[in-house]
Amino acid sequence: MNSFNSIALPDALQAAGITLILASGSPRRRQLMEGLDIPFKVELTGEVDEIIPAAISPEEAPEYLARLKSAAFRPLTPGETLITADTVVICRGQLLGKPADKAGARRMLQLLSDNRHDVLTGVCLRTTAVVRTFTARTTVFFRPLSAAEIDFYLDHYCPYDKAGAYGVQEWIGFVGIERIEGSYFNVMGLPLHQLYAELQELGIATRGH
Amino acid sequence: MNSFNSIALPDALQAAGITLILASGSPRRRQLMEGLDIPFKVELTGEVDEIIPAAISPEEAPEYLARLKSAAFRPLTPGETLITADTVVICRGQLLGKPADKAGARRMLQLLSDNRHDVLTGVCLRTTAVVRTFTARTTVFFRPLSAAEIDFYLDHYCPYDKAGAYGVQEWIGFVGIERIEGSYFNVMGLPLHQLYAELQELGIATRGH
Repeated sequence: MNSFNSIALPDALQAAGITLILASGSPRRRQLMEGLDIPFKVELTGEVDEIIPAAISPEEAPEYLARLKSAAFRPLTPGETLITADTVVICRGQLLGKPADKAGARRMLQLLSDNRHDVLTGVCLRTTAVVRTFTARTTVFFRPLSAAEIDFYLDHYCPYDKAGAYGVQEWIGFVGIERIEGSYFNVMGLPLHQLYAELQELGIATRGH
Repeated sequence: MNSFNSIALPDALQAAGITLILASGSPRRRQLMEGLDIPFKVELTGEVDEIIPAAISPEEAPEYLARLKSAAFRPLTPGETLITADTVVICRGQLLGKPADKAGARRMLQLLSDNRHDVLTGVCLRTTAVVRTFTARTTVFFRPLSAAEIDFYLDHYCPYDKAGAYGVQEWIGFVGIERIEGSYFNVMGLPLHQLYAELQELGIATRGH
């Protein structure tokens, strides 16, 4: 199944005509991808109307949106593998995406305070031959956050590009999260070990094989 | 209990004569501390013989060692708060510290492969008036790691300054860890939310209060 050498070097991937493309504007996803030690490039997809049909449940939403982003990308050429992803927060049955404004961010953080929530990332991998999708779930437990702590976070950090209005790798994540169950990297935006396993099956991730 | 303003600025801490000192050579602990948004300085403790008496169980070892590091520090002056910490890995009842060499690191990773283990960090906070210690525990689940994957990690990364011979924020953590239960930052070396809560009780962490 795997046509590469035991350790795939960037040259080996290039020689095999393999290009891995991450279509995401998120600097956190780029940073996480770099940790996999597989060469990739970033190329953004076109605008996507993130409208979720009524028949799609909150749990299905991130995978649906990852597929939508993949479909909005330019046509792929043989050898290209495209990665798209979408992360949402679900708390008490409510689907939380990115907050529109400060008031919305405050409402989200008030909901997450002293509560557990699930972070779901849907991932879509696509080549000219196959489409694979999967969803990863991590449960996150926040301690009670005071109104002053929420305001401090909103005033000094940037919740607006983050599902659920918080970054696990920012102050509020450091001081407010008591525990998680699942993948930490999924909370940051990419479930790395599952993504790596999928890339192995596609013959792209070949470190130590 | 708290004599500071609602948001403690560095100036406010300095004016109150408060100095927070992290006595750790670990760049990861320094990075984590920076995330708390509280001014601190790094000052190393003297050499500590990390010998654990027979009466101390593996679970008690990190807190014992954190106390030992604290005791080896120079005398504190009023207003200074000293943080010391020690992280160990416990797998199948075996206490894993830092590996001595490549063979030792390989043995540790082989033990962790396809297995669960606990990461325990003991923390000691000390002023001229009080000593507080606590231990945080996170459970980590590795998928089966191939011999080639372990060798790739040992050849390309640095396991020697890390308890259990791996960094959760390095390649092997990205691709090999299926899930964790507890604090991610504890696995990196400092249980931030518990440390923050302790600093709040000491009147030092006052963001949003």
